[in-house]
Amino acid sequence: MIELKSRRPWVLLSSLLILVGVAAFLVFPLDHEQSPIGYASKHAAPYKAPRQNVWAELTEGEAADVNNFILKEFAHLDLKKHPKSARDNFIFVVETLKPNKTDAASYLYNDGPSPPERWAKAAIAQNLKDGPYMIYYMVGPLPISKDSVILPLEYVFNSGRNYVQNPMKDYTAIQDFALALAENVSDITQELLGATANRQNPSDPHGLLAVPRGSRVDAGGLTLWLQFYRPGMSSGARTLLPQGIYAKVDATSSDVNEWIVSQFYYNGVLYEDAEHFRAAVDGPDFERTPPNLDGPWTDTEDFESHPPGRELPPPVSVQPYGPRYRLDRKERFISWFGFEFYITTAQATGVSLFDIRFNGERVMYELGLQEAMAHYAGDDPMQGGLEFMDTFFGMGKNAFELVPGYDCPAYADYLDAEWHQAYQTHHTPNSICVFEYTADYLLSRHTSQYSVTASRNTFLTVRSVSTVGNYDYTIDYIFYMDGTLEVKVRASGFIFGAFYTANNTKSEDQYGHRIHEALSSSMHDHVINFKADLDVAGPKNDMVRMAIEPFTSTYEWDQPEQPKRNTMHLVEYPVTEEAGIDWPKNSGEFYIVYSSDEKNAWGERKGYRITPGTGMGSTPHLTILNSTTLGDSARWAEHDIWVLKQKDTEPRSADPLNFFAPHDPIIDFTKMADGESLEHTTSDTSYDGDLVLYFNVGAHHVPTSQDVPNTLMHTSASSVMFVPHNFADRDPSRGSVQGVRLQMSGKKSGGFAGEEHEPSGDLRSRQMGRKLEGQDRTKASYFGATYESAIKLPLEAFEPDMAGYSSKEHDVTDLSISYKVGAAGV
Amino acid sequence: MIELKSRRPWVLLSSLLILVGVAAFLVFPLDHEQSPIGYASKHAAPYKAPRQNVWAELTEGEAADVNNFILKEFAHLDLKKHPKSARDNFIFVVETLKPNKTDAASYLYNDGPSPPERWAKAAIAQNLKDGPYMIYYMVGPLPISKDSVILPLEYVFNSGRNYVQNPMKDYTAIQDFALALAENVSDITQELLGATANRQNPSDPHGLLAVPRGSRVDAGGLTLWLQFYRPGMSSGARTLLPQGIYAKVDATSSDVNEWIVSQFYYNGVLYEDAEHFRAAVDGPDFERTPPNLDGPWTDTEDFESHPPGRELPPPVSVQPYGPRYRLDRKERFISWFGFEFYITTAQATGVSLFDIRFNGERVMYELGLQEAMAHYAGDDPMQGGLEFMDTFFGMGKNAFELVPGYDCPAYADYLDAEWHQAYQTHHTPNSICVFEYTADYLLSRHTSQYSVTASRNTFLTVRSVSTVGNYDYTIDYIFYMDGTLEVKVRASGFIFGAFYTANNTKSEDQYGHRIHEALSSSMHDHVINFKADLDVAGPKNDMVRMAIEPFTSTYEWDQPEQPKRNTMHLVEYPVTEEAGIDWPKNSGEFYIVYSSDEKNAWGERKGYRITPGTGMGSTPHLTILNSTTLGDSARWAEHDIWVLKQKDTEPRSADPLNFFAPHDPIIDFTKMADGESLEHTTSDTSYDGDLVLYFNVGAHHVPTSQDVPNTLMHTSASSVMFVPHNFADRDPSRGSVQGVRLQMSGKKSGGFAGEEHEPSGDLRSRQMGRKLEGQDRTKASYFGATYESAIKLPLEAFEPDMAGYSSKEHDVTDLSISYKVGAAGV
Repeated sequence: MIELKSRRPWVLLSSLLILVGVAAFLVFPLDHEQSPIGYASKHAAPYKAPRQNVWAELTEGEAADVNNFILKEFAHLDLKKHPKSARDNFIFVVETLKPNKTDAASYLYNDGPSPPERWAKAAIAQNLKDGPYMIYYMVGPLPISKDSVILPLEYVFNSGRNYVQNPMKDYTAIQDFALALAENVSDITQELLGATANRQNPSDPHGLLAVPRGSRVDAGGLTLWLQFYRPGMSSGARTLLPQGIYAKVDATSSDVNEWIVSQFYYNGVLYEDAEHFRAAVDGPDFERTPPNLDGPWTDTEDFESHPPGRELPPPVSVQPYGPRYRLDRKERFISWFGFEFYITTAQATGVSLFDIRFNGERVMYELGLQEAMAHYAGDDPMQGGLEFMDTFFGMGKNAFELVPGYDCPAYADYLDAEWHQAYQTHHTPNSICVFEYTADYLLSRHTSQYSVTASRNTFLTVRSVSTVGNYDYTIDYIFYMDGTLEVKVRASGFIFGAFYTANNTKSEDQYGHRIHEALSSSMHDHVINFKADLDVAGPKNDMVRMAIEPFTSTYEWDQPEQPKRNTMHLVEYPVTEEAGIDWPKNSGEFYIVYSSDEKNAWGERKGYRITPGTGMGSTPHLTILNSTTLGDSARWAEHDIWVLKQKDTEPRSADPLNFFAPHDPIIDFTKMADGESLEHTTSDTSYDGDLVLYFNVGAHHVPTSQDVPNTLMHTSASSVMFVPHNFADRDPSRGSVQGVRLQMSGKKSGGFAGEEHEPSGDLRSRQMGRKLEGQDRTKASYFGATYESAIKLPLEAFEPDMAGYSSKEHDVTDLSISYKVGAAGV
Repeated sequence: MIELKSRRPWVLLSSLLILVGVAAFLVFPLDHEQSPIGYASKHAAPYKAPRQNVWAELTEGEAADVNNFILKEFAHLDLKKHPKSARDNFIFVVETLKPNKTDAASYLYNDGPSPPERWAKAAIAQNLKDGPYMIYYMVGPLPISKDSVILPLEYVFNSGRNYVQNPMKDYTAIQDFALALAENVSDITQELLGATANRQNPSDPHGLLAVPRGSRVDAGGLTLWLQFYRPGMSSGARTLLPQGIYAKVDATSSDVNEWIVSQFYYNGVLYEDAEHFRAAVDGPDFERTPPNLDGPWTDTEDFESHPPGRELPPPVSVQPYGPRYRLDRKERFISWFGFEFYITTAQATGVSLFDIRFNGERVMYELGLQEAMAHYAGDDPMQGGLEFMDTFFGMGKNAFELVPGYDCPAYADYLDAEWHQAYQTHHTPNSICVFEYTADYLLSRHTSQYSVTASRNTFLTVRSVSTVGNYDYTIDYIFYMDGTLEVKVRASGFIFGAFYTANNTKSEDQYGHRIHEALSSSMHDHVINFKADLDVAGPKNDMVRMAIEPFTSTYEWDQPEQPKRNTMHLVEYPVTEEAGIDWPKNSGEFYIVYSSDEKNAWGERKGYRITPGTGMGSTPHLTILNSTTLGDSARWAEHDIWVLKQKDTEPRSADPLNFFAPHDPIIDFTKMADGESLEHTTSDTSYDGDLVLYFNVGAHHVPTSQDVPNTLMHTSASSVMFVPHNFADRDPSRGSVQGVRLQMSGKKSGGFAGEEHEPSGDLRSRQMGRKLEGQDRTKASYFGATYESAIKLPLEAFEPDMAGYSSKEHDVTDLSISYKVGAAGV
């Protein structure tokens, strides 16, 4: 862990605060009853959620009240409203402390009269004797009253602490130091890279950048590696432009003035110091690699290419008659063909869903992202220790405005988000979209002897996109008419490339492919953790592994011809204690969460199956065993899914501040997944049988030339699905779906669905066809509404007016971008 | 193997022929220059393929010529044009014998002046001394001339034979026998099922059906099991209506009159014969299960349900300006954003693609389905031995007319197919569709500091649906703008359920779930085999497994702080000999086919990766080890992918007639995948390095109540993708894709893609926006064509006129349906 014992702690975060305050997001006056972008006729009748959204983010007013209450109550801390240096204490963030499930349950499920108490969670930057800390408090109940209190928030952190020491206490000093460092070797950078850093103008498009490695060293903890980058002015492609010069900083002293630039690394060679490096550069045998220079190859767009077909716009999805879901914008509640759920957001984790029900039955209490990790490997000092935990940067904070008609269909509904940091409320308009889409394939179909039936697969998606520096995560929660839910994450944006020495003196081919002059694709694992608190037909659930196994059996009816038969059967293995489980070999097991009590009409336990969904293959977990870089901060990454007891004291698998303290994290997942028994009986009240699952999506990403300039989403999707498993008595989509039955021509009797089951007379006289606008559709019987006439659609249906796109350019020095993508250093 | 040494061989096939002749498909006069269904403006300019489709199915004229030539040349066989009994010899099927790759290559790739010789493959039903055979011949060259000959077609069958003995030689006798059997126990069926078979009217909607098990017994081979079914009049749901009475037939005698009905099986109890069964039924302690009766629960449609939202039609995809691919209907050649390929069809295997190129470079010579197998398990005599090989029934023959606007978008182009059997040409109109679709998610996107770029993911699909009896396979070949290809199979239709004894005296819960009164969901494995003859930048290729492995390493730059580091790296394992390979644990290996010679601009080998795609998780292989039922007929099902030498003598992994001879198949895959060395050098001419892959898609299908009445496609998809891996120098989709770059508001310089890379002046003055119909779109710069005005779309754009749907009802006794779904027996 880096422990910069500097006199200027907290500049990192305060500079972040200040920067974020002045930039990034326009406060957009959203009309909550109407989508600001879209053409479709919207919900005519206002729709009301059955209950309050008890997980909703603090309103601007609530946040202000909480801030003021803390300022008043914690007067002894001398909290600054406008912190000027890292010595100042201040309130870093306030947000909703989500209610304990136990407290919410009576309101939600037992017709409890009032919602659970509302509390806030506050992170306060506090300087203690041994340095700066981030300290969590709980503030409530809300609204602030004489009963409100501020308490240390400890019970949700299994470290037993409510604080993390800040290891990056003097980020400004690092910036200053890097700038001086770069200036001191400007002769070398000019010689090797044809450029220098510009201390006067860090935004100089020709100036070099220097970026410290975004992960920490375990032993000693006071060493930094910086690499030089070019800014990538045409597309922001900084992470494709590593320059291959790395500098090591000995930062063991608490006084930044005593820091020492020690080694340099270039082209596979380690130099003792700048002088040795300089001498080598000037020497006759020095081997160099031409640096990565920006150019059209990093352009994310091609305006010039005109292959046949590009003169026509592509097919597009339209929704002339408006949406079929009902949306309570105030409570962020959606109802769609049997599904009902609440949406909420958080600055760290983005969108979560709560109280998901299907056809009135409970399915999940909570579904939401916990952490998004990217872990690199490499033989250079930057990539070799690089790892990101993106909730630290904020999956919610970095969920920017969506591009209408592109990120989401033109007819989508949009929701905004708010988050509160350093006494300021930030609004991200249109950062969540909700839409139905009709797949290019059917939900079901069958050609029988007399007819063919086809049902369209129209699904509902709740989408947000978090652009955390170089990388864009498109996060979907998808609902299908049969009760299936899907969580899908797609990656795009720029990869974080490594410098590739052209003469290949190193072992870099072990860590990626060469994808440009001096650029390695830099292998990495994405592991993104989600929580799914399943309550399948109620909280009391059992998890089983239902294996499909080969075996050899003897059957009485097979005798004597076949004494033994090689065949297969199902074998059920209950999961009796908390465990991490990997997807099985040959997909040979079904992982099912069953209701312990509730059965369907056929006596089968009501269940939901968790399975790899329609991403690329099965979701992977982290390759690295016991990662040196991660320590204990992300042990959830080590298996595909985890089955745990639900506990109010374990609401999350991770905390953003784990990024600060990997070897002593505030939440250690191994303490949650610690093998407790999951067995439960009705007589034993010590455990009620309420399970929670954590699961990972992601990818082993070995980018190729196809990832330049951006990773493509069609092959980067990773998904987990929750599929009803005997949950209902019959496929529930039949009553929701839109489709057609076509009667074939002919004279034979064949029966007709929806008619009497006693066939009488000629089938074709009993057809249920409709005439549509003069067409002979007597063959066709539609179920669900159909289109019945020509429609004139406005341009907005095809190309939304982008004038409504309100985002301002992001500040280049915004930490959440700059720290990660390389604009930070100098 | 069943060897019914009957006097009436070939009635099975002749009755099939006759029935197929009179039913099933209307000869629809297709205009080959225009899609018969659709509203979009179609290709204005005729488009010409660069070469002939040398794999095209025989034309009607060619087929007639081949038939006449055989009739003349094989006069000694006394081939009947209208076979009356199984004693008659006749030509069963004629189709294209696809040219050897070696012969096609010079025409395709070396500017050879003329296409390879065209030959036909004929299957002739011939009665030899020891019974009836199906014998393959090759007939050519075509057109028939004095040089044309008929030769035994042996070289493509590694059995060394060109024939298979027909084990089901007296299907009519089996039908008769089953009918008599059912009548003889009509007192029992009336008592237990409330119904009897109707010998006078096999189509009686109240009459019971009796279906023999569609797989064979190894030892002895002369035993049949039949089960009773109800017809399922409302939806054709026969396979959901097993009745639980099973009868065993001792058919060791060659004289059907000597066949003996031996055991009966009911409710988990085996009875010595009908008399014992009858006595038990009449006894006091007899346990019975109420039978499965048809009802609304098997309806594939629900016209009555009106949940909120169902009053509105769902979103739908439209394509107002027509397609962007170019299609030569005559040669069945498609060109789309760099992709070029030929389409062909075959009665057994359906659609195949040939000579797939991307941006002018070779990618695959051939891509197509080989076999579709479904293997059941169960503790009853029907399900316990059930297995289907659906090319035997014909994936092409059973690729019926698609439902416009449902199976494929309203704007799709349709192609028809033809096949030739028993001197007759069968046309299936509109059985293949081609369309572009814009996904609900982007191909790529990035929010940078100054702008956001979004590119739509529009892909091209070639689709057909094969309904083989109860089951519908939707088979897609999908093309993406970056050069990725996907093969995706989705299943719908009725499952083949098993009888479930209500008192559960049996072990049936080991084989499925109870999903109706007396219905088990009957677990089964679908394994569907495809061939992909990859020629990555030419035929000389190498297959490697690139593993992503954890390891502990020491880095010079890590010292002394981190003596060792737990990290990961890439390790390459060449595949040096023919092998079956399974998908790796934790998705921890990339399987890549590299060009042996060709490299991209960065010195990386041009490659394509084969990977589980966007189906449900990773594709599985057969669970059962050394299946008793399958014997050697489908050994390709035992691993996920296979890497083999390409050989003209091994064009396919399977033959439809393998279904006749599982223990001595005409193609034994183990003789193809026999471990030959794949190593090749330029100096050694014994092997040119041309590889072929076979891979499986499918599912371990343990249906649940959600599969009633039909399996749903959103969770039944199974896919394999071929993803370019350093094939190009940069993502090729950039020049094809349609999208937008939105400039954010603000004043900072940030560069602009497509502009000079020297930023000068205010960025926003250099915008490339366009004004669209009065909108302020100055922020938006579009690449690729966009929509520019309101559009009035005809009803056809939303709901195609179904009057064009031309299919006639299928004959209930059509073997390809009836044999499988249970209308066959009596």
